[in-house]
Amino acid sequence: MSNQSLLSEQVVTAIRGVLGPGPAMLHEPSLKGNEWVYLKECLDSTFVSSVGKFVDRFEVDLACFTGAKHAVAVVNGTAALHIALKLAGVQAGDEVLIPALTFVATANAVTYCAATPHFFDSEARTLGVDVAKLRDYLTNFTEQRSNQCVNRASGRVIRALVPMHTFGHPVDIDGVLALASEFKLAVVEDAAESLGSTYCGQHTGTFGLLGTLSFNGNKTITTGGGGAILTNDAALARHAKHLTTTAKLPHAWEYRHDEIGYNYRLPNLNAALGCAQLEQLPSMLTAKRDLFARYQSAFAQLTGVTLLAEPAQCQSNYWLQTLLLDDDHADQRDEILAATNAATYMTRPVWILMHELTPFKDSPRMDLSTAQWLSQRLINIPSSSGLVSTFL
Amino acid sequence: MSNQSLLSEQVVTAIRGVLGPGPAMLHEPSLKGNEWVYLKECLDSTFVSSVGKFVDRFEVDLACFTGAKHAVAVVNGTAALHIALKLAGVQAGDEVLIPALTFVATANAVTYCAATPHFFDSEARTLGVDVAKLRDYLTNFTEQRSNQCVNRASGRVIRALVPMHTFGHPVDIDGVLALASEFKLAVVEDAAESLGSTYCGQHTGTFGLLGTLSFNGNKTITTGGGGAILTNDAALARHAKHLTTTAKLPHAWEYRHDEIGYNYRLPNLNAALGCAQLEQLPSMLTAKRDLFARYQSAFAQLTGVTLLAEPAQCQSNYWLQTLLLDDDHADQRDEILAATNAATYMTRPVWILMHELTPFKDSPRMDLSTAQWLSQRLINIPSSSGLVSTFL
Repeated sequence: MSNQSLLSEQVVTAIRGVLGPGPAMLHEPSLKGNEWVYLKECLDSTFVSSVGKFVDRFEVDLACFTGAKHAVAVVNGTAALHIALKLAGVQAGDEVLIPALTFVATANAVTYCAATPHFFDSEARTLGVDVAKLRDYLTNFTEQRSNQCVNRASGRVIRALVPMHTFGHPVDIDGVLALASEFKLAVVEDAAESLGSTYCGQHTGTFGLLGTLSFNGNKTITTGGGGAILTNDAALARHAKHLTTTAKLPHAWEYRHDEIGYNYRLPNLNAALGCAQLEQLPSMLTAKRDLFARYQSAFAQLTGVTLLAEPAQCQSNYWLQTLLLDDDHADQRDEILAATNAATYMTRPVWILMHELTPFKDSPRMDLSTAQWLSQRLINIPSSSGLVSTFL
Repeated sequence: MSNQSLLSEQVVTAIRGVLGPGPAMLHEPSLKGNEWVYLKECLDSTFVSSVGKFVDRFEVDLACFTGAKHAVAVVNGTAALHIALKLAGVQAGDEVLIPALTFVATANAVTYCAATPHFFDSEARTLGVDVAKLRDYLTNFTEQRSNQCVNRASGRVIRALVPMHTFGHPVDIDGVLALASEFKLAVVEDAAESLGSTYCGQHTGTFGLLGTLSFNGNKTITTGGGGAILTNDAALARHAKHLTTTAKLPHAWEYRHDEIGYNYRLPNLNAALGCAQLEQLPSMLTAKRDLFARYQSAFAQLTGVTLLAEPAQCQSNYWLQTLLLDDDHADQRDEILAATNAATYMTRPVWILMHELTPFKDSPRMDLSTAQWLSQRLINIPSSSGLVSTFL
């Protein structure tokens, strides 16, 4: 028991050593650039709503930063995923492979397509899809019919595979692409957490048919609420814009909509904030790497806990800094959470796994032992880009 | 032909007489109050996203202004309708009665519940539901089974009735409530266009089980993008808040969601704008009534065109000022649209009727002859609250 108390105290001391006295939120926006200038410009123009130059500029800036050929700004990351899945061909009655270890938006978006999430396991190295294990599973439990991957147990088509770059750490993307090609699955990358993260120098969210970003208030950059769809396919980008803007055909005054559309456009007001935030993204990413390095030194001497580093060949945005408890200390997770939060350093465990949530308890799934193992051992610690400079 | 040219010229002249030289948009935001102050305050607080004091205040202010017991702020009017329909009990396979004469969001929201829109006709007096005609139709084509209204042709339950207050003019609400009670239909009021409109002194959107508002950029007040759900039922309000915020159960750090939820919350940044806009709503409504009075004088002498006034016992917000062409001049609609737009006064016809859109062409419907008659004859003319003061 004395050792147990010790680790939670040691974690508090390590965090305090990096951040100084609290409080520190898990992830706060940093709004130190042109946010006010652009918001005021937007307000003065009166174009605060569905059209305006900041939406156009934000989309161009996002494409430029990520290297995607096209970016379509939308109202949040969940909406981005919903539309990306639809554009990837997900239909009512399909199944979509998603991680059990993810935020609930990934699973919800699948249900918005009247499809069923099908959960795969993660690997400890990336916190994302375990490609080898998923290949074994698909080999054993699916078959190809007319170039489609069919779940033999349910008889349903598995249409797409959604890798999620957890806490900003890229998954094994080469493995994902090979697997998807082999099993005829469309790849939609959930890059909600990984703006600024690259795999072999290429930005996450640009490898799949489509990728999605989030600019919620807790993300690396924020638009209040917002998201984006990335794609290199011009026709898909046009269709994404069409679907997210009520599917209205262009006309001076006629209101004709040619398919079921959505009101998912990002308001110009929020895009104005996004343009200012994107300008600061490179310096935020530097600050977050700096924070990682400081945490790394602070946690290097602790037994029982490891600070997660970016996978090889990857650059992580270090959206959320993450501790992993070893087997001997996993039972101290809640004590560490309580002690750090009591010391005003906001920490939290990873999300409850999707298959443990009531709405998804009957969804198909493979063995999820690593995700379960991880879910008992992960702790996110304060990660805002402003934390280091605040302390210095 | 000379008479035809004359009417379009007369309309341009009448509008110019009220507005002075153009250009004039159909409906522009008026941002002349505390918008800057509150946006800056929001930015300085860093609470730009999903929680913050402006969201709470906006909800209280909306409830106070409308007299609804509860208001839940959401990301737009479409999202408000989607959730209101769900909370009214609309399930997959149901039908929902909505006007053919409406913006496409009403119909889309029904499909998001995996239900089918069933279109009813409008009356010329209010532009909204023709209650007597709908009663005849339901009497002839539906039957009550286990206290549910069943469409005899499709066998599906007709779960709800959605009156829409077109251009701000309240429908015959007493008629709607009696009809809904008679046929066991839940009433969800689409008050997207009618913030500030009252029926016998009570605010639209507060009569049904739930009501919905929109604060899109073209509406009377704007939050960039935004909407709200109104209800007098505390349990429904709590559920609306829960569903629109990912259905997460309250906990210091645990992420447990107990049903399929949505990311429909209004960002605090947009709510800040909304608080400032609501402060100005009374003066905007006065300005819009003033604009109506001026248009009324200007159009009084014209033959072939009537400016629509609020129905008896109602106060309209006059969101969009509306001309109705008589039978002898209906064929001049497009010429008037062309002439006014060419003269830089933005005008437009009413939306294409829902059953004429490809995605809804097979939806069930009653005779829609009045809606069709209206759709050939309605023209919206510039309606911004700032237009009169700009000219004076």
